[in-house]
Formats: sequence, structure tokens, C-alpha cells
Amino acid sequence: MKHLSILSIALMISMNLNAQQPLTAEQSDPKVMGWMQGFPPAKDRTVSLFDGTFFEFPALRYSVCHMREFFPTKVVKSADNDRYQFDEALDSSISKIEFMPLGEKKAMTFEESLAKNYTDGILILHKGKVVYERYFGELTADGTHAVMSVSKTFTGTLGAMLLAEGILDEHKLVKEYVPELANSAFGDATVRQVLDMTTSLDYSEDYADPKADVWIFSAAGNPTPLPKDYTGPTNYYEYLETVKKAGEHGKAFGYKTINTDAMGWIISKVTGKSIPNLLSERIWRPIGANFDGYYQIDRAGIAFAGGGFNANLRDLGMFGEMIRKDGYFNGKQVLPKAAIADIRKGGNQADFAKAGYSNLKNWSYRNMWWMSHNANGAFSARGVHGQTIYIDPKAEMVFIRLASHHTASNTANDPYSLPAYQAVADYLMKK
Amino acid sequence: MKHLSILSIALMISMNLNAQQPLTAEQSDPKVMGWMQGFPPAKDRTVSLFDGTFFEFPALRYSVCHMREFFPTKVVKSADNDRYQFDEALDSSISKIEFMPLGEKKAMTFEESLAKNYTDGILILHKGKVVYERYFGELTADGTHAVMSVSKTFTGTLGAMLLAEGILDEHKLVKEYVPELANSAFGDATVRQVLDMTTSLDYSEDYADPKADVWIFSAAGNPTPLPKDYTGPTNYYEYLETVKKAGEHGKAFGYKTINTDAMGWIISKVTGKSIPNLLSERIWRPIGANFDGYYQIDRAGIAFAGGGFNANLRDLGMFGEMIRKDGYFNGKQVLPKAAIADIRKGGNQADFAKAGYSNLKNWSYRNMWWMSHNANGAFSARGVHGQTIYIDPKAEMVFIRLASHHTASNTANDPYSLPAYQAVADYLMKK
Repeated sequence: MKHLSILSIALMISMNLNAQQPLTAEQSDPKVMGWMQGFPPAKDRTVSLFDGTFFEFPALRYSVCHMREFFPTKVVKSADNDRYQFDEALDSSISKIEFMPLGEKKAMTFEESLAKNYTDGILILHKGKVVYERYFGELTADGTHAVMSVSKTFTGTLGAMLLAEGILDEHKLVKEYVPELANSAFGDATVRQVLDMTTSLDYSEDYADPKADVWIFSAAGNPTPLPKDYTGPTNYYEYLETVKKAGEHGKAFGYKTINTDAMGWIISKVTGKSIPNLLSERIWRPIGANFDGYYQIDRAGIAFAGGGFNANLRDLGMFGEMIRKDGYFNGKQVLPKAAIADIRKGGNQADFAKAGYSNLKNWSYRNMWWMSHNANGAFSARGVHGQTIYIDPKAEMVFIRLASHHTASNTANDPYSLPAYQAVADYLMKK
Repeated sequence: MKHLSILSIALMISMNLNAQQPLTAEQSDPKVMGWMQGFPPAKDRTVSLFDGTFFEFPALRYSVCHMREFFPTKVVKSADNDRYQFDEALDSSISKIEFMPLGEKKAMTFEESLAKNYTDGILILHKGKVVYERYFGELTADGTHAVMSVSKTFTGTLGAMLLAEGILDEHKLVKEYVPELANSAFGDATVRQVLDMTTSLDYSEDYADPKADVWIFSAAGNPTPLPKDYTGPTNYYEYLETVKKAGEHGKAFGYKTINTDAMGWIISKVTGKSIPNLLSERIWRPIGANFDGYYQIDRAGIAFAGGGFNANLRDLGMFGEMIRKDGYFNGKQVLPKAAIADIRKGGNQADFAKAGYSNLKNWSYRNMWWMSHNANGAFSARGVHGQTIYIDPKAEMVFIRLASHHTASNTANDPYSLPAYQAVADYLMKK
């Protein structure tokens, strides 16, 4: 086997779940399983980065709340002072709201959906107040959780911010900002094409294929020692330099993580700051985040912009609420209004349709946000295993869900999530 | 070469510094050196865990402020609310205080001693107020720094706390608390002997000897993948089980890190909590620490109790001041008065003398604190490369120094430190 990153191996195993019925949320609760309990933990209850348990269900239910205990990480500093505290207007009747799962004929309550989706934490804000908040399994109110590809949305939002501030030009080619990428597929893509993932890259993110490019990318970012015979790229950036084009940019949406890491590189080049430092300075501290977040990093100290962020539930709520309020939050204009407007106008739906997401009809992708184009104008950030920020402007609602679903793809939880969000929105609009 | 931990290899290299004059503090400032600057950093300015640069001077001057970026770590949570803020009564004339370095004939100013000792951060408290505070090189007011063996003092203080609370009995044998250690050297040692390091262990901590036991201990704690042919202990605890006796316990002081890790195991067994969690719950949060600290951990998630703690300068000052005030700080009795009294009564000076520390005449070691038995009753926590907490009860002074001296052993900086502390104490007593 090649020099795969551990995360990669674990994701691979997680994709190969056998056909047996997986454990329920209650059965797979890390405290019930006993992961990493005792001094020392029992061998068969030790979660290890190196034997496949780390990101395999059910151990991943433990890992997502403890990522820093497995990897080198870089801090995203929280606010020193002016730490934001939400007002609360808790409404337990939200638990009883019923909705019809996509493709099913039997209604489910919102509370039932939480276990169905292996929810670790859920926060619902209405008009900026906490109306619902629950923690399950390994997540605590003062804990952090891997947000997986929700990380992309943070990178994309920083990109939109720099566009609005005139520091980046969406029409310029990537090679003008990152000369090292001139000969790669990214070289002649525009910043806009990278931000909206309409680049055309010879890159496979099919985790089920051991020869897929994603494994080479993962190996490059693996911070453990290199095998003696290894000759490949040794950090994320070196990998990006090797990516080849596969057609013409700007023709179709193609969800490929490496766009975000290329965007991260562009952002660091023009600002002179790492993604964790810039995110802290421009967003995390201004919104008044209460807890340090952090990124997984590679051996060159480069943060995994496409999937390595970890954060606290309420802090994510502050971010979502700031976006809902057009960038104004915690007594200040955190992000330019124009940046949020550029997110909200959405991407090209025809380009998006070509990617064939059956649960996401008429959606688009803009600045690394998923835009529903529904009647409420909802848009969201999405990460594997159920990570979600869902903003419904019409219902004045922000939804944060952190989860550890046994199946990576959100196609597994969308049927029990998207209609549930709509049902809660409908309820809140009637209040 | 055996499967050595990276920290070990780096320490080894650091011990083998060539005879040339090392760079000065100014020359070796990480910002001057350019470590990890740029996107990506230049190859010859990339600090790597795997090529020897990580803990080799001058790169270690960068590393000590970024340990989490190299290792898996476990958080020591700071206070959510009730975060302590020091009052200030800054006195810049402290810079000009003169003292005579040990064994020299030319006086030096206090300010000159800071560069001489490769100081990264210094905080002096007098009667609980900040009278002096400086940051150099890579350390910032909101940053953290490796405290190295000052970690031992935190473990020892938790031990003293549990003795004072009757949860531990100093006369009991280690095997009564940790049955796994029954057949090791620790099995028939008392808790007191472990706390005061008067055990007799067949264990060499001579970093210059590649066959020294410390390398096996380090390899056991190394969180990177195990070589295929590796058959040794795979975590800190497994290593402790293999340690053999070398004579009779209780006869002499012998400074051996593994005593602290054995003590950490005892503490976790009786409390059911990891050292990071217990430290957070019982000390870090109650004193009102402003910043999360963290520990380096092994592949079983066990914190390196003997040397793996990282913390913020002012937060360390809060800890020191709490100790000086007999456990009372931030409006509450954080630790039992009896625990502090037990530290202050000191250890056996005759036992200590057998270890032959030329700069530490008449000192002793108690609950993992270094006791000076000088006229002011000063006592301290000490870590390699110059880490120090120095408490002078008579002068009502607490000194915190974080540093990255080119030489690991404190014998290199003591001549420019111990008389400097005394000179500042003398000055403050006259104010």
C-alpha cells in the first residue's frame, strides 16, 4: 500500500462499511462504547490513528470531538474580551415538530431525527436567540468538533471578503497570485472559478478507489515521517502544483476539495497570513468566539483549508448569525456587506445540475456555500458525516448541526435533515 | 538507530552542540531566522519534527512556542468566566538592577541577563501585582510556551493536593494504587518517595548516551507509527512497568523524569481523570486562567506528566501567586492550605546533596518543587532551557521565566538567574 494518510485510510474503511445494520446512535455513543476510558484504556477501546479505528464508525464518534489528540494542529484564537453570549428563548416544543423524510411515507418528529442523524450537537437560533440546543455522545457545550468540509465555507467566505475589499480580483488568474501554480491546472483558472469549483481538474475524489488522486493529496498532507522510498509531494501545496487540467474551466460545478486548498494558498499569498491566523483575526475574534478553534496541519505547517477546521457549537452559531445579519454581529460590521451579498446571489444552477445531486435539485454553489434557491433563500455549509450550517433568511433562523453519522456522504442524512430544517423554519415563521 | 522519539533525537542533537560560539539571543530570534515564514516556508527554514531541526538550537526557539503544531496534544481548559486579570504597578527601573553572576567578577544588569539567558518571556509579580513583563522572540502575550520539567511541579502539586485531601496516603506503596506497577521498581516505593524522587531506579537519563533508558521511555511515548520490528513498550505506562530497581528506595534524591509519570499514573488511577483534565478542573479554571494550556500525549492518549505541559506566561503567574498565597487566589481557596504547607516544609537536604548540584547548595526537592532553603524561603519549578517559576515568600515576589537557551541544562543559566532573582527580591523588599 502506498504512503496514505491515516485520515485517508480511515475514510476508506468508513466507505467500506459492511452490509450489516450499523449500531444506533444510542448504541454507538462513545461513552457506551468506552473509547479511551481508563488508565490506560483497554487495547480494544484505544482509538488509534494507525490501525484504522480512528475514523471508522463507531470510533469516529469519539474522534470527531478529539481531533487535536491525533494530529498536529494550529490554533484559531478566540476573543480575549468582548466574548459574545447569546440570549436564550428556549422552546422545547421544537422537539415535537413533525416532518416527512424525503422519499418516505411516515412522518418523524424533529427529536427522532436527531438520533437518526447521529447528532452530536444541535443549535437553533431564531432572530438571534437560542431556541434549541442539545448535546449528545462525546460533545459538550465547551467542546470542539471536526466540521470537515464546512471548513471550505470558511475559506470561501474569507475569499469573498477579500474580493469585497478589492484585495483579490475574481477575474484574475490564479497564477497571478500564486506563481508556483502557473503550470498546474489552477494556473489559468480565475479566482471566481476556484471559489465556485467550476475548474476542470484531472482529479478523482472517489474514496472507494485506492488509486484515486485524493489519496496522493492526503499522503502529501500526512504529517508523520515519510517512507524512505517516498518521492511524491511532501505538503499540500506541493501536491497542488502537480494537478493537471481535464478540459475547460468554467463549464460545470465539480466538488473537489483541492479547489479550497488552492484558494487557501491564494489567500495566504495576498494577506501574508495563514488561514488559521486570518480566520482568527478577521472572524473568530471579532464575532466574540468563546473557544479556540483549530486546524489540522501538514508537515510544512500548512492548514488543511478544505477540511481541517474544528470548532465549538455556539461559536459556529455566532458565525452563522453574523452571515445571516449581512456581516454585522457583536456590535460591529465583521465582514463587508458586499461579501455576504455576493454569497447570497448564488452560483450558476445549470452548472450545478451537471453534478447530479439528487437531493439538491436547483441548488448552486457560490463562494464555497451551498445555495438552495428555495422560497426562503436558504443556504448552507456542508461536511461529511452530517456537519451543517443552515441559514434560512426568511425564517430568521440559523441551524448548526454537528454529527458523526456512520455514512460519510450527506446523501445518507439529507432525507432526515433538509425537510426537518424546513419544518422548523415553518414553525418559527408562525410564532 | 532504534525507534527514538523525535523529541529524544532532537534533545540528543541539542546536547551535542559544537564548540563554536552559539548565536546570541538577538541573532537567534525566530523572526530574524525566518522559521516557518512564507507560503510555503523555504525548505531550509521549515522546522520539522523528523530531520533534527525541531528541538535543535536555534530552531527550538521557534518550536517551544508552537509545540501543538508538531504533536498530538490534549487541552487544559481555561476559565469560561471569572477570568483573572492582574493589577499592574510596572517598574521599569527593575531593568537597571545590578547583580554579580555566580563565579564571575563583573556585575550585570537585570536587563542584560534577559538576553544572556535567551529569555522569551518574563513576568515579575510583587504583592500580586505585575511589576515587570517582557516578551521576546517568538512569544506573545497571548501565546503559550513549553514549560518542560516545570510540568513535574504541576503533577507534584496535584499529588500534594490529593495527600492533603486524604485521597492519597504518602505512606502507601505504589502497587496499592497501580497494581500494574507491582513488579516494577515503583511497586514497593511509597507515594512520598515517588513525589520526592528518592526512589532507586535502574534508569539512566544521560541524553548523551544513545543507549540510555530515557530513549526507550521516549520511544514508548512517541505517537508516530511503530516500526514493524518494534517490540518495546508502546506507551508511557507500558514503559513504567518495565523499570527495575537499583538499590534501596528512600536513601537519596535522584532526578528522574519517570517518577513524575508514575505519579501521574497514581493520580489518574485514584481520581479517574487524566492529568490535563484534573489540572484544568482543580487549578487552571479556578485560578481564572485566560488561555487554554495543553499537554503532549502518547498514542494511548496519556499526557507526558513529566515534561509535556505548555502554558501562557500570565497564567503561570496566576498559578505561582496562588501557591505564594497558600492556595488562596481569584477569590477562593483553590488548593488546601495543608498542601502548600507540605511543599514549603521542603525535602531532605542531605538526600539532595548526594545528587551534587553545584549551583544548588543546601537545596532540597519536595512534591516536585525545588526548595532553596535560603533566607527568604524561596522555592521554584525548573525546566530545561531555562523554564522557571521562582517564588520568594519573604519578598512577596513571584518570578516566571520562559526561555529557549541553547543549552538544555539549567547549570548554563543559573549563574545569571539565581543571583538576579535575589537582587530583584532585595530591591522589591526595600520598596
